Amino acid sequence: MGTHQGFTLWFTGLSGAGKTTISDYLTEEFRRRGYKFEVLDGDVVRTHLSKGLGFSKEDRDTNILRIGFVANLLTRNGVATICCPISPYKETRDANRALIGEFVEVYVHATVDEIAANRDPKGLYKQAMAGEITGFTGVDDPYEVPEHPELVVDTMVQTPRESLQAVLTELVELGYLETDEVMVEGGRLHSGLTDLRVHESGNVVDES
Amino acid sequence: MGTHQGFTLWFTGLSGAGKTTISDYLTEEFRRRGYKFEVLDGDVVRTHLSKGLGFSKEDRDTNILRIGFVANLLTRNGVATICCPISPYKETRDANRALIGEFVEVYVHATVDEIAANRDPKGLYKQAMAGEITGFTGVDDPYEVPEHPELVVDTMVQTPRESLQAVLTELVELGYLETDEVMVEGGRLHSGLTDLRVHESGNVVDES
Repeated sequence: MGTHQGFTLWFTGLSGAGKTTISDYLTEEFRRRGYKFEVLDGDVVRTHLSKGLGFSKEDRDTNILRIGFVANLLTRNGVATICCPISPYKETRDANRALIGEFVEVYVHATVDEIAANRDPKGLYKQAMAGEITGFTGVDDPYEVPEHPELVVDTMVQTPRESLQAVLTELVELGYLETDEVMVEGGRLHSGLTDLRVHESGNVVDES
Repeated sequence: MGTHQGFTLWFTGLSGAGKTTISDYLTEEFRRRGYKFEVLDGDVVRTHLSKGLGFSKEDRDTNILRIGFVANLLTRNGVATICCPISPYKETRDANRALIGEFVEVYVHATVDEIAANRDPKGLYKQAMAGEITGFTGVDDPYEVPEHPELVVDTMVQTPRESLQAVLTELVELGYLETDEVMVEGGRLHSGLTDLRVHESGNVVDES
């Protein structure tokens, strides 16, 4: 593994917007480059760091700050750290930005209508829209759009490959990567159809 | 910072046994050597990772496994990670050993009588022995002595300097350090008198 500057790449956006998909592509690029990286995703965090926390604003904030605490430890030791919790609240995202410093916020955008129509095989958005699930980000729970993210990727119009390219290019511009060439093509990369994973509480697992 | 093999140095023992004192000495040695290191101590963990957890066996175990989860992320990215929670239960310590692999368990030994008599200016042990505080490790709550630690340091008979030397020598023998020479003498190093810090719950902060 090479030695490089640590940074945190913070994907924020609705469930189903494409955060995990882009993150999966990106880890392949980091791996190919010999970069040290870690992914703090919803599943892992809810199991190992935040068991017992629910989906109230306070618990969501605690979860996000906890991810930020760990991301900071990794980042300052030279690890490329990818976080992809929904993180609906601006204040907690900004608190992590202030803590970590080397912080790249990427807003992954898709509308509720698009996700509900095309990326929700389990029908969770539809259930939320029908009031059968509550506290669902983007439906009856708030999502605060980032005002000054380092990058916006719009998965309504971009392919995953194009979103990946945009992230790589941004990382080069910020000095965290040497080349934005996509080194891993096809193969492992999946269709972009998000299969929302359901947490034992009934919320989707990356709900944060 | 140099690149080196990551490992977790896990100090276990009663409150006041000397875990934090030895850890403080050791961080000076790591700093002087240009090692990447992190300390996951009671204060930091209880604030940033485990807020809301109490001191039941279940909560203690959750806290210890959470520390282990973070220590593993750091260790596998080349960080010398020092953990010094009481960690009274063998099973959770062993679970972290299995997870982390590069795991050096150091049992820091002193008796309750010694700590209560000489290292407890706030009188917490005396209160626990009088039944005024409950759930206190070593008094009315269990502490399971490690059966196969990599190292035992006995702070009843060793000076902190001697305990530090023993740890450094063990790290060299295990291949994690190149030299066991003590590079930082006197100065910053304090007396060895532990001033037990009290958690808001009334338990000492490194109670785990």
